[in-house]
Amino acid sequence: MTAALDYAVQNADVFVDQLKDFLRIPSISTDSVYDADTRRAADWIADDLRSIGIPTVEVMETDGHPIVYAEMGDDPGKPTVLVYGHYDVQPPDPLELWDSPPFEPVEKDGIIYARGACDDKGQVLMHVKATEAYLKTTGELPVNLKFIIEGEEESGSVHLVPFIEQNRELLAADVVMISDTSLFADGVPSITYGLRGLAYVEVTLTGPERDLHSGVYGGGIENPVNALCKMIADLHDENHRVTIEGFYDPVRELSDEEREGFRALPFDEEAWLEEAGAPATKTEAGFSTLEGISARPTLDVNGMWGGYTGEGAKTVLPSQANAKISCRLVPDQMPDDITEKLRRHFEKHVPETMTLDFKDLHGGHAAIVDTKSPAMKAAATAMEAVFGRTPYFTREGGSIPVVADFKRILGLDSVLMGFGLDSDAIHSPNEHFGIDRFHQGIEASIRFLDAYSRQ
Amino acid sequence: MTAALDYAVQNADVFVDQLKDFLRIPSISTDSVYDADTRRAADWIADDLRSIGIPTVEVMETDGHPIVYAEMGDDPGKPTVLVYGHYDVQPPDPLELWDSPPFEPVEKDGIIYARGACDDKGQVLMHVKATEAYLKTTGELPVNLKFIIEGEEESGSVHLVPFIEQNRELLAADVVMISDTSLFADGVPSITYGLRGLAYVEVTLTGPERDLHSGVYGGGIENPVNALCKMIADLHDENHRVTIEGFYDPVRELSDEEREGFRALPFDEEAWLEEAGAPATKTEAGFSTLEGISARPTLDVNGMWGGYTGEGAKTVLPSQANAKISCRLVPDQMPDDITEKLRRHFEKHVPETMTLDFKDLHGGHAAIVDTKSPAMKAAATAMEAVFGRTPYFTREGGSIPVVADFKRILGLDSVLMGFGLDSDAIHSPNEHFGIDRFHQGIEASIRFLDAYSRQ
Repeated sequence: MTAALDYAVQNADVFVDQLKDFLRIPSISTDSVYDADTRRAADWIADDLRSIGIPTVEVMETDGHPIVYAEMGDDPGKPTVLVYGHYDVQPPDPLELWDSPPFEPVEKDGIIYARGACDDKGQVLMHVKATEAYLKTTGELPVNLKFIIEGEEESGSVHLVPFIEQNRELLAADVVMISDTSLFADGVPSITYGLRGLAYVEVTLTGPERDLHSGVYGGGIENPVNALCKMIADLHDENHRVTIEGFYDPVRELSDEEREGFRALPFDEEAWLEEAGAPATKTEAGFSTLEGISARPTLDVNGMWGGYTGEGAKTVLPSQANAKISCRLVPDQMPDDITEKLRRHFEKHVPETMTLDFKDLHGGHAAIVDTKSPAMKAAATAMEAVFGRTPYFTREGGSIPVVADFKRILGLDSVLMGFGLDSDAIHSPNEHFGIDRFHQGIEASIRFLDAYSRQ
Repeated sequence: MTAALDYAVQNADVFVDQLKDFLRIPSISTDSVYDADTRRAADWIADDLRSIGIPTVEVMETDGHPIVYAEMGDDPGKPTVLVYGHYDVQPPDPLELWDSPPFEPVEKDGIIYARGACDDKGQVLMHVKATEAYLKTTGELPVNLKFIIEGEEESGSVHLVPFIEQNRELLAADVVMISDTSLFADGVPSITYGLRGLAYVEVTLTGPERDLHSGVYGGGIENPVNALCKMIADLHDENHRVTIEGFYDPVRELSDEEREGFRALPFDEEAWLEEAGAPATKTEAGFSTLEGISARPTLDVNGMWGGYTGEGAKTVLPSQANAKISCRLVPDQMPDDITEKLRRHFEKHVPETMTLDFKDLHGGHAAIVDTKSPAMKAAATAMEAVFGRTPYFTREGGSIPVVADFKRILGLDSVLMGFGLDSDAIHSPNEHFGIDRFHQGIEASIRFLDAYSRQ
């Protein structure tokens, strides 16, 4: 392991240059305009895996973007680690708020700015470079290692589940390693043991067939934007709780021990608000901010549009109003069940002057993993060595639905060892990743593989 | 007059071709991209006025789009008519819903399809062609005639009021003639005696400084789109009345006689709904649909946007939510007063987690004119001759703020003799104007000038 660690230090700058190359590819999976670029990103990471000496690397086709699979070793005396990551990225909109172009990585004060720097190109590359460090020095790995790197994480991973189902044997392992989450704070190591799920829908309310003149028709025809506002307003009560019937029924309540854990975390609410650029918090009554953002379900409008949105004043009574709405879910809320409850709620409340179109865009299961497993202990050992302090076990508010999928289909727990920061602006303009964290991640990956092989 | 009427019949096709030329100019006053085109429309109508023999025609500069002024005659023995119209048009969005390009006029089954066909290029041209019919036959007009044709009606007529104020003498007249309203129904003549006013604002709610990841922050940061939905939902109560404090205070209640007049109108609600393409009406409790759309104030969202509105799912918690909101006003609601009440309402209800930006986009006064004046009688005579039946006196739901401005600044009443139909899709895709109504309007204008000169 020492040789591998040394190699990583010696090649630190090379690794950063490689990350920049990877970041230059606009692999926006949700927008078909970028299909060729998305494939180019798959080829890039596959080529890199080949170049470091992994014997089996394949770009495997799906009905959507391809999945990169790689493997090395089948020693029955060693545990098998399956590293999961994704090479696709979020759309960069709104473009005008970026200080530099999203796909032209800029390095400033030890930070790389680019779409995907943290989510997830930077983090998946840490494991590839850790592997390289072993292979280029000792020529072998302390574990049997597999990679599954998909290209649809930001568009719902629609083809990943069938792929896992069809490739159970290929993907057989002892644990999944995922770096797509955050440190609790810069320099404060943490390992994520809980994730929220997601139910994401789009609703369209249609009133009149066409946009009407608001003077000629206003006062006689109900306005779908006003009506959708009412429907959305009614989705929360005065305690900021979601009003959808049965929404909270499946929620596994937080134990006293868990709530104690939340209180023990070194959470600086003022600093967090400053990072978020928001003047005040707002959380479901009865819960702390940390609980609200990671262990309680939510409902947010992610986008809304209707009528005239250009410059100046246009006096239309719009024909349609649209909203993208998503719920963050916690165990044991099931995405299909919540989507169905959302559908029933909207269908029940659609005004008689309008028609409703309800689309299920995608969903993902929430997850909680055991903090006492051998792999979690190995991860804690690795993190402690890198940071010189014991890591916290935390829950995160985001969704990595594949964690639940790996559990359900392959029976595998995931180790969520992330190096992002909440302030990295993932999914926002000026996404970035600290180069120090990129290197910490490589070191942690090297140390994890070693520690896990000894458990 | 007979010669003028004959001339109009003989030149019917020429007039239509000229209208098409006028319609080809995309004079979208609200969008600065079209500034040169908007000026081109001013020049087009000025050139046409010159070509028919009007001695004084000027394209007069303002701080915005120019105003076309023309005049002929100063015989103290004749009354003076000031014809008002506008050469600018609404934006054509959404473009994809047009069956033919908005600025390439298409004639189909006796109807011209193009942006501005009805509102207002077709209707203002009727008066120019009626004038031409007199000048090319008798060489003179039965009245002193002035034209004021502006280019900012669709963007709030911001420079028209100062222009009228600075040119009181130039614009001195006995009555204003405006054709920018609708017939009660095809073949059913009507003269409009009431118009609604307008107060149009834009509000922006800002929560976090940037779009945030809805997983990382959702549940701890209030969502401005959800919050704006709540604020908008609360603008109406369960009787579909506007909840803004003092909103109804200045409203002049409908007299029993007026309500009787509304009941007497041959209004086919089913046909009206079909024209609107809507499944059902929705009106303030206690009022009929006709009253709701013309004699009662309203509040409608004209456009709303926030967050991610592209293809697919993006899990953002938006930084901002925006809405364009306008109220149709009735006498004696004053636009500035209502805008101020809207501002106070929004400022009072903005959540403490957000900041509000409130913009007054524009306003216009409601108007009611005397149905028994000489000019109104002349208009009724003209309409009866053209249609073979007595016209109704009606109120319209749209706004022509200049009617109140002419009254306030010049002391002039306006005759609102419109030839549109509610189904002409003004402000919507596939705006159109019946060629028969274009010719009826020319005939009515010829007859009005004659009848008014005899009053």
